[in-house]
Amino acid sequence: MYFHDKRLQYPVKVTTPDPLFARQLQQAIGGVEGEIRVCLQYFFQAWGNRSPNTKYRDMLLHTATEEIGHIEMLATAVALNLETAPLSLQESTAAANPVVNAVMGGERPRHVVEGMLHKHLLSTGLAAFPGNSDGVPFDGSHVYASGNLAADMFANVAAESTGRVLAVRLYNAAHDPGMKDMLSFLIARDTMHQQQWLAVIEELGGYGEQLPIPNSFDQNLEKKEFSYAFFGHDKDGTPPPAGRFTQGPSLDGKGQFKPLQSEPLGEEPVLGPARDGSGAQKEQIGKPSGPAVM
Amino acid sequence: MYFHDKRLQYPVKVTTPDPLFARQLQQAIGGVEGEIRVCLQYFFQAWGNRSPNTKYRDMLLHTATEEIGHIEMLATAVALNLETAPLSLQESTAAANPVVNAVMGGERPRHVVEGMLHKHLLSTGLAAFPGNSDGVPFDGSHVYASGNLAADMFANVAAESTGRVLAVRLYNAAHDPGMKDMLSFLIARDTMHQQQWLAVIEELGGYGEQLPIPNSFDQNLEKKEFSYAFFGHDKDGTPPPAGRFTQGPSLDGKGQFKPLQSEPLGEEPVLGPARDGSGAQKEQIGKPSGPAVM
Amino acid sequence: MYFHDKRLQYPVKVTTPDPLFARQLQQAIGGVEGEIRVCLQYFFQAWGNRSPNTKYRDMLLHTATEEIGHIEMLATAVALNLETAPLSLQESTAAANPVVNAVMGGERPRHVVEGMLHKHLLSTGLAAFPGNSDGVPFDGSHVYASGNLAADMFANVAAESTGRVLAVRLYNAAHDPGMKDMLSFLIARDTMHQQQWLAVIEELGGYGEQLPIPNSFDQNLEKKEFSYAFFGHDKDGTPPPAGRFTQGPSLDGKGQFKPLQSEPLGEEPVLGPARDGSGAQKEQIGKPSGPAVM
Amino acid sequence: MYFHDKRLQYPVKVTTPDPLFARQLQQAIGGVEGEIRVCLQYFFQAWGNRSPNTKYRDMLLHTATEEIGHIEMLATAVALNLETAPLSLQESTAAANPVVNAVMGGERPRHVVEGMLHKHLLSTGLAAFPGNSDGVPFDGSHVYASGNLAADMFANVAAESTGRVLAVRLYNAAHDPGMKDMLSFLIARDTMHQQQWLAVIEELGGYGEQLPIPNSFDQNLEKKEFSYAFFGHDKDGTPPPAGRFTQGPSLDGKGQFKPLQSEPLGEEPVLGPARDGSGAQKEQIGKPSGPAVM
Amino acid sequence: MYFHDKRLQYPVKVTTPDPLFARQLQQAIGGVEGEIRVCLQYFFQAWGNRSPNTKYRDMLLHTATEEIGHIEMLATAVALNLETAPLSLQESTAAANPVVNAVMGGERPRHVVEGMLHKHLLSTGLAAFPGNSDGVPFDGSHVYASGNLAADMFANVAAESTGRVLAVRLYNAAHDPGMKDMLSFLIARDTMHQQQWLAVIEELGGYGEQLPIPNSFDQNLEKKEFSYAFFGHDKDGTPPPAGRFTQGPSLDGKGQFKPLQSEPLGEEPVLGPARDGSGAQKEQIGKPSGPAVM
Amino acid sequence: MYFHDKRLQYPVKVTTPDPLFARQLQQAIGGVEGEIRVCLQYFFQAWGNRSPNTKYRDMLLHTATEEIGHIEMLATAVALNLETAPLSLQESTAAANPVVNAVMGGERPRHVVEGMLHKHLLSTGLAAFPGNSDGVPFDGSHVYASGNLAADMFANVAAESTGRVLAVRLYNAAHDPGMKDMLSFLIARDTMHQQQWLAVIEELGGYGEQLPIPNSFDQNLEKKEFSYAFFGHDKDGTPPPAGRFTQGPSLDGKGQFKPLQSEPLGEEPVLGPARDGSGAQKEQIGKPSGPAVM
Repeated sequence: MYFHDKRLQYPVKVTTPDPLFARQLQQAIGGVEGEIRVCLQYFFQAWGNRSPNTKYRDMLLHTATEEIGHIEMLATAVALNLETAPLSLQESTAAANPVVNAVMGGERPRHVVEGMLHKHLLSTGLAAFPGNSDGVPFDGSHVYASGNLAADMFANVAAESTGRVLAVRLYNAAHDPGMKDMLSFLIARDTMHQQQWLAVIEELGGYGEQLPIPNSFDQNLEKKEFSYAFFGHDKDGTPPPAGRFTQGPSLDGKGQFKPLQSEPLGEEPVLGPARDGSGAQKEQIGKPSGPAVM
Repeated sequence: MYFHDKRLQYPVKVTTPDPLFARQLQQAIGGVEGEIRVCLQYFFQAWGNRSPNTKYRDMLLHTATEEIGHIEMLATAVALNLETAPLSLQESTAAANPVVNAVMGGERPRHVVEGMLHKHLLSTGLAAFPGNSDGVPFDGSHVYASGNLAADMFANVAAESTGRVLAVRLYNAAHDPGMKDMLSFLIARDTMHQQQWLAVIEELGGYGEQLPIPNSFDQNLEKKEFSYAFFGHDKDGTPPPAGRFTQGPSLDGKGQFKPLQSEPLGEEPVLGPARDGSGAQKEQIGKPSGPAVM
Repeated sequence: MYFHDKRLQYPVKVTTPDPLFARQLQQAIGGVEGEIRVCLQYFFQAWGNRSPNTKYRDMLLHTATEEIGHIEMLATAVALNLETAPLSLQESTAAANPVVNAVMGGERPRHVVEGMLHKHLLSTGLAAFPGNSDGVPFDGSHVYASGNLAADMFANVAAESTGRVLAVRLYNAAHDPGMKDMLSFLIARDTMHQQQWLAVIEELGGYGEQLPIPNSFDQNLEKKEFSYAFFGHDKDGTPPPAGRFTQGPSLDGKGQFKPLQSEPLGEEPVLGPARDGSGAQKEQIGKPSGPAVM
Repeated sequence: MYFHDKRLQYPVKVTTPDPLFARQLQQAIGGVEGEIRVCLQYFFQAWGNRSPNTKYRDMLLHTATEEIGHIEMLATAVALNLETAPLSLQESTAAANPVVNAVMGGERPRHVVEGMLHKHLLSTGLAAFPGNSDGVPFDGSHVYASGNLAADMFANVAAESTGRVLAVRLYNAAHDPGMKDMLSFLIARDTMHQQQWLAVIEELGGYGEQLPIPNSFDQNLEKKEFSYAFFGHDKDGTPPPAGRFTQGPSLDGKGQFKPLQSEPLGEEPVLGPARDGSGAQKEQIGKPSGPAVM
Repeated sequence: MYFHDKRLQYPVKVTTPDPLFARQLQQAIGGVEGEIRVCLQYFFQAWGNRSPNTKYRDMLLHTATEEIGHIEMLATAVALNLETAPLSLQESTAAANPVVNAVMGGERPRHVVEGMLHKHLLSTGLAAFPGNSDGVPFDGSHVYASGNLAADMFANVAAESTGRVLAVRLYNAAHDPGMKDMLSFLIARDTMHQQQWLAVIEELGGYGEQLPIPNSFDQNLEKKEFSYAFFGHDKDGTPPPAGRFTQGPSLDGKGQFKPLQSEPLGEEPVLGPARDGSGAQKEQIGKPSGPAVM
Repeated sequence: MYFHDKRLQYPVKVTTPDPLFARQLQQAIGGVEGEIRVCLQYFFQAWGNRSPNTKYRDMLLHTATEEIGHIEMLATAVALNLETAPLSLQESTAAANPVVNAVMGGERPRHVVEGMLHKHLLSTGLAAFPGNSDGVPFDGSHVYASGNLAADMFANVAAESTGRVLAVRLYNAAHDPGMKDMLSFLIARDTMHQQQWLAVIEELGGYGEQLPIPNSFDQNLEKKEFSYAFFGHDKDGTPPPAGRFTQGPSLDGKGQFKPLQSEPLGEEPVLGPARDGSGAQKEQIGKPSGPAVM
């Protein structure tokens, strides 16, 4: 079960509120690369963890719990950036006036309605919501918890990699020192989170032990002649580019990479006529048709 | 641009059609772990690839093109498994009759409507569709193409890991030898696909060069004291479990792992009263309110 | 504006309630081929109709209004079919008991929870909801109202064609005479609705006048050498099958059909290196990178 | 069944078309707080109403029918506001030119493409669609019809409360007198609709009779020691804020409010090892693994 | 920020695992009436709370934090109920065998694949996921946080009312004593949660002070003649049913209820011809058309 | 199976990159009218084609394969248009400066962040993604493959009609000659694609043979008195507008059109009281209630 402390994990300060930056921050809350996703992902991986011991369940719970606090920081940052957003279209006009802009020292007029998420104005009362920077709501199907520990660890690395890419883009886009400071903390945490999931793979013996995923399936049951072949699909048979993936031992040490031009091994599939009573046109059935006969 | 051969990449045969297995196969077509997702993922990574050379763009195109053929194989397998599915509720009754079952040797009655996806009966005319095994349509937001090569490679490993886990579960669930054969091919291809994306990371210098992702961000700008610390969030301060992720050098060789009990570094956030005209209750505003004044 | 009469457009009677048929009827309410879709589609086409006169706006309003009554009929049918559905898993057991089934004359046990939509049990209290037969909620993006009258008419024909296919499949699946009677009415209405949208195309001059859609674009601005060519994409250049679409005058009378083997007319696209500060890996950029420099 | 009158329920006039306001109005059509939602919600509550009499079914039908007319008014308002929207990016440029703006008296340039919903330009031909102000399509899962009358009434109050908040925000954002007039009507109707659903609760005996919802469940079967306790979850045990919800009789008159520090009453859950053949890593299973053995 | 204790808030025990009940429990996790929704709803209401003081922000944080623990309990219950679920279609057959059923004392065979969520088998490895009982993923648009305190309180009452209705239905459907015990706790908490949000309305002065929502809008700006009128929409003018909502003082004490037959107050809307270059048919435009002229 | 050629089907050139046009092009990639939809639609129609011969399966495969190349062209166009998009909010400011604009000859400032899709900046690294111009992800439920050949052909005509309308709108909006050239090719292909699906209907005997769809259902089983009647739903009985759809022979030659005022043929539906244990309020049940009794 869970507890809270009313203080934030890290300070969140905004000197110059910017509703457009509020919009961009939404991606880090409810986007595919965002914090709600990793928070729920780590929780569901922990809650469904089946293993002879609880070590990784325990580990996942710590980080999942941390992530709630990250959503909280970002939601606070969104609200602070919306502090002075325009409530009417006229208010927006005034701010967008070139003369006003000149007075503001040539800076981007920050109060223009045009670039805002309308949900911020119309639905949340100048606050954050669980959706992305284009207003698309968070979707739980992005929560990967496969029941396979190694697959989950790579899904977590992928999430933290796209997450840190996003945080860096937000850092680059930001102009407020408070926002840059907050992001420098979140970027550091993403650095660690990338590391820690890969450390689990290493701790369990690395690629040699863990690959292919799932490692509990007997590889003798797969078509092994295709297990380490890079298939070329160029129309004219031009071979694929040479690289680590076309030569040398495979990373799991169980095979040798090789290139192979892909050719059809199967036949043209023919499904035959449609069944009577299946709702097809009669030409598909090949004879008069009616309601299904039992 | 693209070309086709009417033959399949690998044979698809079904001896005993099973509409329930048709349902399960849908997960490998339109599910999160399925082939439409990886097909579009590799295509969009290729088409958006920005790089001094086109090596990885080229590599991605080969594998993306292969994946279209995998969707085709699975869609064919779904149609073949639906060959004898019941079209009416009465037809279902007959098959579910215990006596009939007994004659069938105690096997599971395969023609019961109860377990089928109704979309197979009502919307597709006994054929596949781009959705998962519970009928949820494929959703393009699962296509990861981040513009960062390393993040994309890990996203691909994650996709192929959950993809092979799924294929193994389908193999274990299957009873038809043709289906087991088809899956033994797809499993082998997933083995290779896991390898090839990791090979790109190795080719580019491995974790030391590629981590943290993105490696183009100056780490001096992140809060480095938190970059390699595993945060404990246990209420009573019980330390997190010891592991590779709490001790030793980090995997990128740029820091030392350490455990750290998480404590609030920020303050309680206070947003203050709501603005006049923002649609809040007057008690939130603290004074009489009306339409926005410009 | 709108008015109601508490009576139904057509009688809805259920003699033998069947929760599984209730599930199947949901497809006709909230599925892609269902009545909510056509109802909203005709309404939005009417409300957005721009034309020198209001004839088609008026026509659309009549049929849109009719469709509300069809949703009502189907929602009533769902509720009646759920009348005796099991509320507990034990209740389900009793009904599924082979002995009980035998007493019921070998009929399909109708009260099994397994095949039901759980939303019917858990969320609606044994009533209909705006979603399809696999529980996926209705999605407004299926409402086609393009602002182009001819495109909309064809979208309406498509909707009524898949709609009547669905209604026929439900008729074939049904066993209750009341349900078959209700469906025989809805099927008749779908017959008319297919006709009426095509009649608009004919009234406006038929294919010769209305195609290609939109007919307000000057065809001299399109690459006319490709406007009536069927492109073959077979890898080995095997020509496409001969048919009405590869020979003879085009249906709009403005060209001649011909087959043509597709070949690349463009070059391999090369996007070049990623930009500094864009969140790519440094290897993609080709030089050291940092925060965006303004 | 249903009928229409071609006239609107209330006049809709636009003097100065504004494509950005058209965008904002979409929230009242297809947003979570919008009219499609309440229209379908009241219809499905009516059509599924199970009760000894039809009073509330009847009441719901009246208001649901009214709501179709509200969608119609708003769709008309959107089309009128899009009357002069730019069709090309160049057209937009001209209007955004500072000099032109100056001539227009410093007003917000109304014809800028930047702030528009692109769906209005590209997909609807300058007309409304069933989606929200950020382009997200209407989603039928927001239609609450639970089969419990009191739960539905509160869901309706919630819908009309957020609906009137939205209408007030639109009123505040609007600059056109016709739009303000139309909204003043819709706001009045929302006032009534909030009242009427609460009046049903009162008519049925108020909180004392209707709470807790559902009132048909025997409260002796719930863990009554926790039924009126406000749980504190502060990490350091700081008690929750004192308020009406921590003291005095409960609103249903069946208990006394009290604060209570939450503590774990359960144990740490341990799921144990994964099953053989379940697709987990072998380390999770604890022994060699293969295909499922029956 | 947040902390965890590895123990559960309340015990979760399962004696007889039932994969079908696991499916039903999913509705309480990721369904519209479920715990993820209320958890995020209370968090976002707290994090965006704008008010002269932090009392309700604080209150919301306590309950939001409690809800994480409820998701955890339910996810644990799902995993335990999936403990013995069949991994292959053959395994399912054996369990469905009538003879086996007879030995099991006529009970419902609990291990049939037909009724299971395939996501439980294929995607999660016999564990919970953030979606509902028909497999539809959790969707963040259900998180209501409007920026208006009273609207939010009613949204919370609605959520806890449908939530308790769901919990009661699950209690009625359950057969395992451990599951009934767990639900008796969750039902008690829902009782309290319904109360506490209504207590906030009372604390702020009740309906007289808080209605209509938002109370910060000057009612003189709305069309007050329609603010307390129940509109009848019967085609033949049959008046609406008499009730508390058609007579007597309104609940806010600011008006008198009355019934009123609805009549069109507006005109038939006419949008006129489509614009040149807008992609309409030329018949809609009324003259020859081409690319947009600037 | 499938093969690729690295060159594009048709040249894609961009002289003046415009991130706003990149946004608009997304509609043609991942929108309802876009290329991913038709590509998957033709593939799934082909893969599920049941017919005495493979002619139309073959035909569909050619065009589906062509469509992959169209997605590729558009994705390339998006990436090229994002070439110079601003990465920071400050960069945007500079470009939006009126003085800079003046120097640019009064043209629309192309680098403003306000109008961009934030997903292009934050999630894709200046490249395309499978979603529409408002950022909504592609949704597989738009792929129509009904199992009925004629219904599918009309669905294809509808898709290509809205597709060509979209392409024309993009052509009109475009300012770059390379973009206009690319679109002139895609518009020509849409011309052909509209034709070819209608040619199939003609080849199969035209409306007389193919309508009503499905033509395999015995029309004697439908309520034929309503099969060719246009129902009027005007409240006051004003007849519907006269047109081809109210008079003359029906287009299938099987009936005569006629107008008919719609009247209720059914009764008011009454569902009766709620069942005990169904989670309704006790007032709905009409007596004391509790847990379901078995």
